[in-house]
Amino acid sequence: MAVHAGLLRMSTEGDGAVVDLTEGVRSVLARSGLQVGVATVFVTGSTAAVTTMEHEPGGVADLRRLLERLVPRDEDWEHNVRNHDTNAHAHLRASIVGPSVAVSFARGQLALGTWQQVVLLDFDDRPRDRVVSVHCIGE
Amino acid sequence: MAVHAGLLRMSTEGDGAVVDLTEGVRSVLARSGLQVGVATVFVTGSTAAVTTMEHEPGGVADLRRLLERLVPRDEDWEHNVRNHDTNAHAHLRASIVGPSVAVSFARGQLALGTWQQVVLLDFDDRPRDRVVSVHCIGE
Amino acid sequence: MAVHAGLLRMSTEGDGAVVDLTEGVRSVLARSGLQVGVATVFVTGSTAAVTTMEHEPGGVADLRRLLERLVPRDEDWEHNVRNHDTNAHAHLRASIVGPSVAVSFARGQLALGTWQQVVLLDFDDRPRDRVVSVHCIGE
Repeated sequence: MAVHAGLLRMSTEGDGAVVDLTEGVRSVLARSGLQVGVATVFVTGSTAAVTTMEHEPGGVADLRRLLERLVPRDEDWEHNVRNHDTNAHAHLRASIVGPSVAVSFARGQLALGTWQQVVLLDFDDRPRDRVVSVHCIGE
Repeated sequence: MAVHAGLLRMSTEGDGAVVDLTEGVRSVLARSGLQVGVATVFVTGSTAAVTTMEHEPGGVADLRRLLERLVPRDEDWEHNVRNHDTNAHAHLRASIVGPSVAVSFARGQLALGTWQQVVLLDFDDRPRDRVVSVHCIGE
Repeated sequence: MAVHAGLLRMSTEGDGAVVDLTEGVRSVLARSGLQVGVATVFVTGSTAAVTTMEHEPGGVADLRRLLERLVPRDEDWEHNVRNHDTNAHAHLRASIVGPSVAVSFARGQLALGTWQQVVLLDFDDRPRDRVVSVHCIGE
């Protein structure tokens, strides 16, 4: 049993940007040499989230439209009023989707489907530099 | 420390089907012989999700009704328009709920509550064969 | 490689209470002596959830308002009708947010951002005693 950790660093435009992390996660797993276990993907920060999706332009556009409708940007959120801030919607979206995903692997391969990618959702309302931690645990 | 992996295979009707995975997860844990650690449950595919809930007919009906309202099937989603597809709503619901859950265990028992089951939510709009990976890591 | 487990016990007021678990998770990690790995945080019960957020009064108020709008308490939910119950909304909110989060750590420190806390969301409609499991796996 071993743990192998890697950091993925990226700059995003924020504002609902969706970044495909799959190759980064695969790279950490490949370097680990582990065959069976779990790859945990965690984003640092309270205005971004990690999940899986089919990363294609239609799905990305749909997800942005859906979240804009469910959690509107332009609303008198308390976070913005109290802190003279503008990104309350980003905080709310991030908390509901969540900051982490755990992807199983076997025979050295992630258990992702063909059209299933690990993605970072950056909801903040400005460009951000992001750090995503990938920890592979297994044997 | 060890990792023990098992696959749960099932056919679902899709269309919001909720499948109780608890006995399957318990079975993988029991075979592992592990006493303390974490069982990660991950579904392969971008139109299904894993979470926990009280698996009873009322809750299942409520969850289907709620998601139909929040993420309607009949809308001009870009995913459907661009790909001549019909299951954009399934992709969106899956990404928001998420593909994985990590359930702690101690003394060889999952830390689930009495009325808390691990469930697969299959949002696709047609019957599907699903594979769920269960990886128990601990000692 | 080792696993170190700790339980966090707390009483909440329910009704959307948000409890900051960060110090509790840090305490379990510190006692473990582990330097690199993953801390899994899991809540037992089907009416509570775990995620991360900036734990400040504005964000807490916003999250409660948002979830009340998206998943209203006062609706003829099947769970309530069939079981003569009153907390269907709590079950639904818990399933969508999810019961677990996996937080990476390195050099003995959680990978949380400065304004990112691990929180318990207790959606039940009455005060509850809660148990949260924290399992640190790594080396």
